[in-house]
Order: sequence, then C-alpha cells, then structure tokens
Amino acid sequence: MTTNEKALQMHEQWNGKLEISAKAKVNSREDLAIAYTPGVAEPCKVIAQDQEAAYKYTMKANTIAVISDGSAVLGLGNIGAYAAMPVMEGKAVLFKEFGGVNAVPICLDTQDTEEIIRTIVNIAPAFGGINLEDISAPRCFEIEERLKELLDIPVFHDDQHGTAIVVLAGIINALKVTGKKKEACRIVVNGAGSAGIAITKLLLTYGFCHVTMCDINGIISKDSPNLNWMQKKMTEVTNLDGKKGTLADALQGADIFVGVSAPNIVTKEMVASMNKDSILFAMANPVPEIMPDLAKEGGARVIGTGRSDFPNQVNNVVAFPGIFKGALEGRATQITEEMKLAAAEAIASLVSDEDLSDTNILPEAFDPRVADVVSKAIKDLI
Amino acid sequence: MTTNEKALQMHEQWNGKLEISAKAKVNSREDLAIAYTPGVAEPCKVIAQDQEAAYKYTMKANTIAVISDGSAVLGLGNIGAYAAMPVMEGKAVLFKEFGGVNAVPICLDTQDTEEIIRTIVNIAPAFGGINLEDISAPRCFEIEERLKELLDIPVFHDDQHGTAIVVLAGIINALKVTGKKKEACRIVVNGAGSAGIAITKLLLTYGFCHVTMCDINGIISKDSPNLNWMQKKMTEVTNLDGKKGTLADALQGADIFVGVSAPNIVTKEMVASMNKDSILFAMANPVPEIMPDLAKEGGARVIGTGRSDFPNQVNNVVAFPGIFKGALEGRATQITEEMKLAAAEAIASLVSDEDLSDTNILPEAFDPRVADVVSKAIKDLI
Repeated sequence: MTTNEKALQMHEQWNGKLEISAKAKVNSREDLAIAYTPGVAEPCKVIAQDQEAAYKYTMKANTIAVISDGSAVLGLGNIGAYAAMPVMEGKAVLFKEFGGVNAVPICLDTQDTEEIIRTIVNIAPAFGGINLEDISAPRCFEIEERLKELLDIPVFHDDQHGTAIVVLAGIINALKVTGKKKEACRIVVNGAGSAGIAITKLLLTYGFCHVTMCDINGIISKDSPNLNWMQKKMTEVTNLDGKKGTLADALQGADIFVGVSAPNIVTKEMVASMNKDSILFAMANPVPEIMPDLAKEGGARVIGTGRSDFPNQVNNVVAFPGIFKGALEGRATQITEEMKLAAAEAIASLVSDEDLSDTNILPEAFDPRVADVVSKAIKDLI
Repeated sequence: MTTNEKALQMHEQWNGKLEISAKAKVNSREDLAIAYTPGVAEPCKVIAQDQEAAYKYTMKANTIAVISDGSAVLGLGNIGAYAAMPVMEGKAVLFKEFGGVNAVPICLDTQDTEEIIRTIVNIAPAFGGINLEDISAPRCFEIEERLKELLDIPVFHDDQHGTAIVVLAGIINALKVTGKKKEACRIVVNGAGSAGIAITKLLLTYGFCHVTMCDINGIISKDSPNLNWMQKKMTEVTNLDGKKGTLADALQGADIFVGVSAPNIVTKEMVASMNKDSILFAMANPVPEIMPDLAKEGGARVIGTGRSDFPNQVNNVVAFPGIFKGALEGRATQITEEMKLAAAEAIASLVSDEDLSDTNILPEAFDPRVADVVSKAIKDLI
C-alpha cells in the first residue's frame, strides 16, 4: 500500500485526528457542582473582575487556534475551508505531539480579508495564541499585521515565519560549515509569496545585506510590473544594485540560493555560475528546484530540501511547536523579530560543532530536545 | 472547604478543563507522512471534490462548538466572553463525559447579533453542530433562527430547548402520576426569557392547549406593554382567554406551574388556589420560586426544582449530550420539533411505571442509560 493509500485509509479510521477530553472528570454530584454549576460561577466572577485571571482558570493558558481560510493549502492551492481541515487537524496533531500545545483547528468559510480579521478577533477570548496557516499572499500579510495590532495574544503565520526560522537556522550552520561571512554573502530568494518574503525579511534582520528576490518573471526590482504591495515594499530593501534579468542572471556570483518556488527550475549550469562553496535550499515540494545530486555536480556544497529522504530537511516542525510552547508558558503577547532570530539560533545550536557537516546542518524533526530548546529561547526574551 | 472554594482551587489546578489530544500518533517519519504531508493531501483532495467526505475524514463527524457571547451566563448575567469561558468549558466537559461528544468552547468577543451570526457561519466548517449557550433574549431567538437557515448542521440553543425538553419529560411523567390529561390542563409559565418561551412552545407542540405566560408584570396578554418581538408572537398562541392580572391571578385554577424566574415569588396560598394534585416546577436557581416543603403545605403533589438536593431535579444534562450524540451519529442537519418531543419521551421513559412516584419523575443525571436512549430517539427520526 502506498503512503497516499495508507493516508486515506488512516484518515477514515481516525475519523478526525483529534480528541477533546476532560481534565475535569465528572463522576459524582460533587464533581458536577465543582466543574459546572454552582461552583463554576466562582472562577467566572474572578475573571469578570480581572480578565488576566483567564490565564489562571481557563484553557486560554495552554490552547491555541490553528486557523486557515483554505486559500493556499500545501501544494493544492485554493481548495476551501472543508478540504483544508485534514491539514489543520494534522497541524494541531503536531502542535500537541511535538510541543504539548493544545490546538483547535478552525477553517473559515470566507476568504474576505475583513471577515477573516473580524472572525478571528471575535473568537480570540478562548485562545492563548493564533497560528495562521495556508492563507494566500498578499492577504496573509495584511491579516497577520492587523491581527497583531488588534489582539493581545501572539499571532503567527507559520507559512511565513516558521519556514523563515528554519531556513535561517540552516543558513547559520551552513555558514559555519563553509566559512562564509553573512555580511559578504549574496543571497537569491526565488519565490515572492508568503514564505519567500518572510525568509527575505528574516535574513535581512539577521544581518545579511545582499538579498535579491526573484519570481516567475526573473529578478524583482523597483521597475518590475504587477508587484503586490508587499512585493513593492520588498524592493526597498532587496536588490539594492537594481539588477535586472533572469533567475540565471541573479545566481551568477551568488553564495546562497533559497527556493520556495517550482520544480526543476535551477540547472547544474546555474549552480556552477554561483560562488565557490555555494549553499542551496531547494524547497519546492515534492520535487525541488534542483535535485541534490545535480546541484552537487554543479558544485554546490550544502544542499537542503523540504524532503525527508535527502539530508538537511527544512521542516517547520522543529520551529512552530516550541515557539507556541514558549509563548504560552511565558505569556508572550506577541512573537517578536528577536524571538524569531533566537529560535533560529536555538535550532542551529542543536547540531554540535563535531556533528556539523555539509549533510548535517539541521536537527532531525524527531530530535526530542528541539521543542524545549526553542521554547526556552522564546521565554528568555519575554 | 466549601464547594465554591474547592471550585476555585480545582479550576486553578486544572488550568483549563479540557485537553486536546491526537488520535493520530506521530512517532516516526512514516507517521508524519501519513498524518501530515504528503499523505494528508489525499483526504483533502477527496473533500475538495465532495464536501460530504468531511464527515468521513475530519473531526466534523464528532465535534461540536459550544458558543456563547457571555451575555446571560448562569445567574451572573452579562459578564462577557472571558468570564464566560469556565462555564463553556464545563459544558464541553459534560458533552464529553455524558455523551462522548467532542466539544470546543468558544466565547465571542462581540454581542452584536449580525457579528455573532457571521462569525459562527464563518467557523462552521470544522464542526458537526453548534450548541449555543447563555445568549440573552430576545437576541438568542434571532441568532438561532438565522443560523438554522444559514447552516446545514444542527444549531441548538440549550438554554431554550434543553430546558424545555427536560421540563416536558418531567411533565409527561407528572401527568401519569396525577392522572391529569394534557388537553384539560391549565399551565402557567412564569418567566418570558429564552427558557420560558422555549418551554411554552414545546408544551404547545406536545399538545397542551391552555398555557399562560407571566413575567415580572404579571400575566402576558396582547395588550401588555414593552413586549419584545418574540413575546408578542407568543401572545398569539398563549393566554387565549385574554386574561389579565398578576401571577396569583394566573395560578387560580391552574394545574401546572413552571417557573424560570426569581426566588420565593410563589406563596403557599397561591399554590392552594391551584387545582387539586397540582404540579410545580420551580426552577429559579439556587433558590426556587417556592421551596418544596412550602409548596407541599400549599397542596402541591409533584414538585421539581433545579437543585440536586431535592427530588425531581430538572437538569439539562439528561438532554443535551444525548441529543448531539444522536445528531452527530445520525448526521442530522437540524434538531427538529419532533426530535425534541422524542427526546422528552425517551427521558420520561427511563422512569418505569413501578418506580414512578410524586418524588421520582425524572431519571438521575448520572443514569448511565440516558445519553444512549436520547441519542437513539434522535437517530430514529433522521
């Protein structure tokens, strides 16, 4: 049986991948009087006086919502709220299994930006954090920014920041392996959607100076037509030389390639045109921008993909569970840029100097230390 | 330690009364590939083609939302979304413990009718049912009616219908005990909020012909001032004699009193003015409209309250868990009037003719048969 066949069979058997159970057991009239009426009125009254007490007496302390509008789900595109549910449930499973975080999957039957924002604000009281998921760009930027202003709990769009954090962690270690210095590195990010933009922003925040973004039309510059508002904003901080041309042009003399784009669009020759000891993160799924063996032939030194069957898998699961675990435990009101950098450093730190190599720059998804280390990095900044 | 002190202590210890756990365990790369990417894409694709498949592959099959705006919480009133959370979590606990139903508590940070409706419609894809809770009248009527039109999943306002079903179950058995006939009975319902109106409606549907509603100003008639739209609508089907006066006037010659109102507003003398073998449901909490011993002195034969320390407790917990268990298992698209009547009959049937007495007309909250019997009654009508 193939993985896909097994997945379908198991999803039917699970019939929903989550279970909601009671920590408060109700086996007697006394139990009922404590967990429900009349006793339950007591914590209600305390919270009515002091909203902060919600973190003491309710699930807000340890529960987040995983929210999508189904507009950009995996590689499936705009499949809508109902079809997005298995992914959001899966994400909630990972939050629990890897980070011990209770997560409620919610798929929104609207793709209107204002409706999405209002709906999330309206349901926020129950939750200690909001993980946005699979919302298409550029709406995802506005939705996240506005929610961060409106809510006093962390709001985190994982497709953007989770990916960016793990890519940065990989790059931090790839620099160690290759001896490259961040100030001198030339980076090309191919793909100007949510992940590509968030990666670019975080790399700039980390201290890289030369980042060029490309999309399907080649290098993005101030003169590129048809850019959305966020892509336009990015032209103020990227491609400062005002270079124009194709992806192949961009890669000439580059040190690092980060692909969140499409399969097989980078050739061996393009890799060969990059600087020595080049670093490639070819994360198109399931087929990367260039297959690792071909990249190697072109002269690449460190190669990461989104796949578990090659070395250096870039997997968000080493980031998001620990980030929300830390944010909830430390009562963060938002996930700051400093926290994202600290999470990346923490993830990178899990590969010791002795273990570090071209084919070992990131911890395994199942490394049991990951969530605690990331969570501590977040809490240390609260 | 008092119950209230213990409740506060336990709520702090629980720190949220619910836990969300994974049915799909993720202990290996293969597990990850099945519960999440790439395998998860398979059920997504099937649902994208056929929305019905959501019931096969997602938690929609067995999960409801318990939703309040915090506007009419227990006896506490309009305490808002945050303070309402312990009650909604408690309700979710009862859904699970008594009916095996997964329930997600959601408190809305808005009390605007349109916003509430839109928000619930927007989050509905994840859920197989919506249990509305503690929303003030008359907004609750419009919110429930509109949601029933807009959604293809059951919407049930428990403060209305749960209470009505259990009261009807009690009355069905009280009629058996007293030998009264429903067609001849005169009923007075005191309290014209969500519960009082829903009780009245269900009693009329069941076949009672003479129901008079009262509120704080006495008998409600077509000429009563300051009625809300739903109360006005109720004057078309209640108090058909156009009687006016006080609650005391209404009770003269009545057979049944149903109180969802205020403590100690019925006197012994008022009970004495009722017909022989009178039936009283005095459900104001925690102090009933008349204490059972006083009602007895006044000549009442069957007396029910909301309290567990007196006989004949009217407790919604014998209704709502089984109702949603049945609705989910049978894939009901709504809870019909027929289902409510069937649920009441099913609850009443649990007290056998031998066990039936003035002080035993309703099954215990912890009767292990209740949820299954109610659930079956619902499913038989789907």
